Amino acid sequence: MKKKPLILITNDDGITAPGIRALIDVMKEIGDIVVVAPDSPQSAMGHAITIHNTLSLNKISKPDAGFDEYSCSGTPVDCVKFAVSEVIKHKPDLCVSGINHGSNSSINVIYSGTMSAAIEAGIEGIPSIGFSLADFDWNADFEVVKPYVKRIAEQVLENGLPDGVILNVNFPREKSYKGVKVCRQANAMWVEEFDKRKSPHGRDYYWLTGKFVNLDKGEDTDEWALKNGYVSVVPVQFDLTAYHAMQQLNSWKLDG
Amino acid sequence: MKKKPLILITNDDGITAPGIRALIDVMKEIGDIVVVAPDSPQSAMGHAITIHNTLSLNKISKPDAGFDEYSCSGTPVDCVKFAVSEVIKHKPDLCVSGINHGSNSSINVIYSGTMSAAIEAGIEGIPSIGFSLADFDWNADFEVVKPYVKRIAEQVLENGLPDGVILNVNFPREKSYKGVKVCRQANAMWVEEFDKRKSPHGRDYYWLTGKFVNLDKGEDTDEWALKNGYVSVVPVQFDLTAYHAMQQLNSWKLDG
Repeated sequence: MKKKPLILITNDDGITAPGIRALIDVMKEIGDIVVVAPDSPQSAMGHAITIHNTLSLNKISKPDAGFDEYSCSGTPVDCVKFAVSEVIKHKPDLCVSGINHGSNSSINVIYSGTMSAAIEAGIEGIPSIGFSLADFDWNADFEVVKPYVKRIAEQVLENGLPDGVILNVNFPREKSYKGVKVCRQANAMWVEEFDKRKSPHGRDYYWLTGKFVNLDKGEDTDEWALKNGYVSVVPVQFDLTAYHAMQQLNSWKLDG
Repeated sequence: MKKKPLILITNDDGITAPGIRALIDVMKEIGDIVVVAPDSPQSAMGHAITIHNTLSLNKISKPDAGFDEYSCSGTPVDCVKFAVSEVIKHKPDLCVSGINHGSNSSINVIYSGTMSAAIEAGIEGIPSIGFSLADFDWNADFEVVKPYVKRIAEQVLENGLPDGVILNVNFPREKSYKGVKVCRQANAMWVEEFDKRKSPHGRDYYWLTGKFVNLDKGEDTDEWALKNGYVSVVPVQFDLTAYHAMQQLNSWKLDG
């Protein structure tokens, strides 16, 4: 019998989120699993790590659960570092992050704790996927995404991923999907709107809010796929070098 | 007389750090400046934004300072959003972030609050540069970097930057430099070492520490440049799409 793959599961909505429970359900079917996830919501934490504070790690799974589950006081990226260094103590065969409550398509990849956890695993040389459902509802229905999550994870286990490449998988909020599209990241952004209020003590304070603006009509983008009923798969990388700009910069007078 | 450019200045070490004071000194010579920076150290915050908590913004400059200076309770990325949306209320001509106490070369770009602030400005369409000195000492000597910071900022103001491109500038810890090199991001990583301790109350806790490992000997990398006495300039982008992997993914059985 072929050895079962070892799969690390994390997220950014916190260990009690329905999205990670759905991911656990699916991954139990295809491998041995270890869960290390934040003990509180860590959305929009990007690639933050905890260096100015201490961290705690608590085993929360019951002895008969069939797998080990830990909550961590840190960020999603801290969770991956903890899992590899202190819990599993070697590289798992796969890391999956999510299923996020809310889309991480286009520019959201860069703010997302879910995707940053997946990217951290990629940096550490682990094949890795972030899954997100474009539905912020805590009671979102994850049933329709489960067969797709399973198939994509199995394909990564079977084919591997190129060095330095992580998958960003987003599901539209539909009851069924037209298919799966390999896409590029749409050029989109958030336009901020700060909601200014006054505290009971007379001090101004703000809530950060914003409006999502898609500047990119390309039919090869993740935004287009999601808007048109497809699951989007964007291969992402952590080599941020803008190679196309190097030639131009070399013509500048930088040396004085 | 030509209108002076408006320059937004931020950092991640906090508004009192000597690095941002050095950056203010230089930018005052070439433009009108506005400073919006975190009220406390925010190193390694990556691209985190504050959505689960409120934010405050305090004007701290004296009336005769000649420029406006604000401290913000949020992350470096929050500071840029605040500056553009609430303080300046339009796009500045340039955003500079730093000068960071410590290197942000190679993979550090992804954890760095300094670079994430610069990247956020880039997302918002502002020509933007992050500056870092490979010296963690709070009393590091910023004098030698100042003429280089000035020249690079002037070149960006003069030439602009391609859409979606931000500069990551790192200075080695030398008393003089051999020159400036346009580089790619070295393929490097941190290997974690969690320092486990026991609290006075008997609970385990951890400090995240790590060892930097450079896997990339290329002489075209930022790590090579810094090690050999050069200032490194890496153009970075926030389109994370791994275009080279799309063809391969399109051969997978993703649709079931």
